[in-house]
Amino acid sequence: MYRIQDAARPAATAAKHFVNGSQRMASTLVLGEYTTPVVKAEVPGPKSKKLLAELSEFQQSGSVQLFADYNKSLGNYLVDVDGNVLLDVYTQISSMPLGYNHPDMLKVLENDENKRAVVNRPALGVFPAGDWPAKLRNTLMSVAPKGLNSLTTMMCGSCSNENAYKNMFMKYMRDKRGGTSDFTDLEKESCMINMPPGAPKLSIMSFSGSFHGRTLGALSTTHSKYVHKLDVPAFDWPIARFPVYKYPLHENLAENEKEDERCLADVEELIEKWEKKGCPVAGIIIEPIQSEGGDNHASPYFFQKLQKIAKKYNAGYLIDEVQTGGGPTGKMWCHEHFDLESPPDIVTFSKKMQTGGYYSKPEFL
Amino acid sequence: MYRIQDAARPAATAAKHFVNGSQRMASTLVLGEYTTPVVKAEVPGPKSKKLLAELSEFQQSGSVQLFADYNKSLGNYLVDVDGNVLLDVYTQISSMPLGYNHPDMLKVLENDENKRAVVNRPALGVFPAGDWPAKLRNTLMSVAPKGLNSLTTMMCGSCSNENAYKNMFMKYMRDKRGGTSDFTDLEKESCMINMPPGAPKLSIMSFSGSFHGRTLGALSTTHSKYVHKLDVPAFDWPIARFPVYKYPLHENLAENEKEDERCLADVEELIEKWEKKGCPVAGIIIEPIQSEGGDNHASPYFFQKLQKIAKKYNAGYLIDEVQTGGGPTGKMWCHEHFDLESPPDIVTFSKKMQTGGYYSKPEFL
Repeated sequence: MYRIQDAARPAATAAKHFVNGSQRMASTLVLGEYTTPVVKAEVPGPKSKKLLAELSEFQQSGSVQLFADYNKSLGNYLVDVDGNVLLDVYTQISSMPLGYNHPDMLKVLENDENKRAVVNRPALGVFPAGDWPAKLRNTLMSVAPKGLNSLTTMMCGSCSNENAYKNMFMKYMRDKRGGTSDFTDLEKESCMINMPPGAPKLSIMSFSGSFHGRTLGALSTTHSKYVHKLDVPAFDWPIARFPVYKYPLHENLAENEKEDERCLADVEELIEKWEKKGCPVAGIIIEPIQSEGGDNHASPYFFQKLQKIAKKYNAGYLIDEVQTGGGPTGKMWCHEHFDLESPPDIVTFSKKMQTGGYYSKPEFL
Repeated sequence: MYRIQDAARPAATAAKHFVNGSQRMASTLVLGEYTTPVVKAEVPGPKSKKLLAELSEFQQSGSVQLFADYNKSLGNYLVDVDGNVLLDVYTQISSMPLGYNHPDMLKVLENDENKRAVVNRPALGVFPAGDWPAKLRNTLMSVAPKGLNSLTTMMCGSCSNENAYKNMFMKYMRDKRGGTSDFTDLEKESCMINMPPGAPKLSIMSFSGSFHGRTLGALSTTHSKYVHKLDVPAFDWPIARFPVYKYPLHENLAENEKEDERCLADVEELIEKWEKKGCPVAGIIIEPIQSEGGDNHASPYFFQKLQKIAKKYNAGYLIDEVQTGGGPTGKMWCHEHFDLESPPDIVTFSKKMQTGGYYSKPEFL
């Protein structure tokens, strides 16, 4: 049985793929790609600085690094307006699965039906197009994590997590009600004024260092940088400790195993504490690798045990694959490295998947 | 001075435009448009029913009405997969400004640079394209409400409102701090665990019957239908009464003026109550016409007085034009009918504007 020593397995697998494949093969994903970075001007250069001044006249632009030329950017190389050719390891906050201007991606928008799908903005929950079921089956459903046969599509990662929280809340309350969705008049009336029992006191557990989005619900489960959170009200929800290991892992086995147990005990303690506070944990959200919060890994053992705890307390187990999903760890979904005894309840995605959404067990729909 | 009698002015103006223009002119927005509805099959027809069964295998689809054929839909007419031609007054939840497959809209996606903008998914806050400042200036900024010279772009209406709430919270705290954004260590540490003073107790006031979105922050200000809210935790934020008038307006002037005063008194009372509860109102959000919650209008007088109350308590005044913005009331922005003494602090948009976001005064950026 492996434990700590496998904590960094996803990254190791990805690295192996890169070494076994060749750099040349990676480059030829897009024909005509630049072969080397070229820095012609400082970064940001004079043209970027001029544009920044222009944009700042009406938009908050403190985080802008440079202005890009998306007509000239290609494959792994981002070209800026000053002619600098940069090897791009940032990939638009991990949203470019195949590099810039991949011909197959551009081809999608040559297709007239796809153009019409964009232009006609269908309200997908009311008037989907006739080809929508087949399209979902041939795309998102064809790469669904094993055992997660239900799908909800959304616009972005933050909304995907928020909506998944709602599904976990509803599932938790439905179970409490003995499986029915028959609501009392009191529930219907009280929810309209944000009060229990209709708007119940429930919580989502998250982990120190996590990032799950910046809308108010998602932000209450985000704990990576204070600049995201200062001055913004938040739900009083429990935050458990994410394992912090000593590296190299194989030299610190005993210590890191203790860290796993300490963090798992923290999870149970907090669940019981919030239950006593009258705000039970309806769901647990965790990233398989903390990305925005650093590059923080936890062992498969940790994820396996966490799932058991979630089941014990009937809390949903949500794995947030917004940043890790779509292949970058060498498997389509990072949690597939963890050998969980059964699928997680919900897996959210966005970014490289080119649309937001989540897979779930049918009872979480 | 006009008051109640002007409550329904936006709708009246729009109707006048329609009558003064001609139906034929409206039709010719898209050449080759159908001239009349044709119902060939029941709605939903057999093909829609078959597709619904298919979709329901993996997606919650209880709200689906029919499956549409977006290749055949044109102008004001939605065509479904069973060949029914329907006069569309629903416009994809008010998101189609020019009807289906308008040639100028399709032309946008013939443009190679626009295709690349879609395919390369730029992280706009970090690496915007070189043409981004000019593009914003020539589109969104060219129709900005008077006096609102700052712009934030977002993906959808719900996220636009949520982000605008954050701007109002930050502005409120910055003012309280005497205009600085120098944070104490305690503020930085406490916000990371969702606690005051870093994550302060602040509230957003909304109105009965309102709809501002379905992510958890926006949902705490939404009070239109209980199906949106049941089983979902909410912030304990104040909800004021939206005026309910007696019609016809000109026969019920005195009574409706009393209703305005009653609602305005309710607003002040709640602001003071929440201040005493230690959860001050940092912002007020209101629709210029409640859309999802019915077709509920309030008088210009009500909106003018509400603005004065917001100023008195230093609360942000956010007008949510997600559904009303973009022209449907005969002006680009519905609140332009209200003759406010100064612009609102923030105006959010989405839907017909084809992208989400908000205009604001610079101090709310």
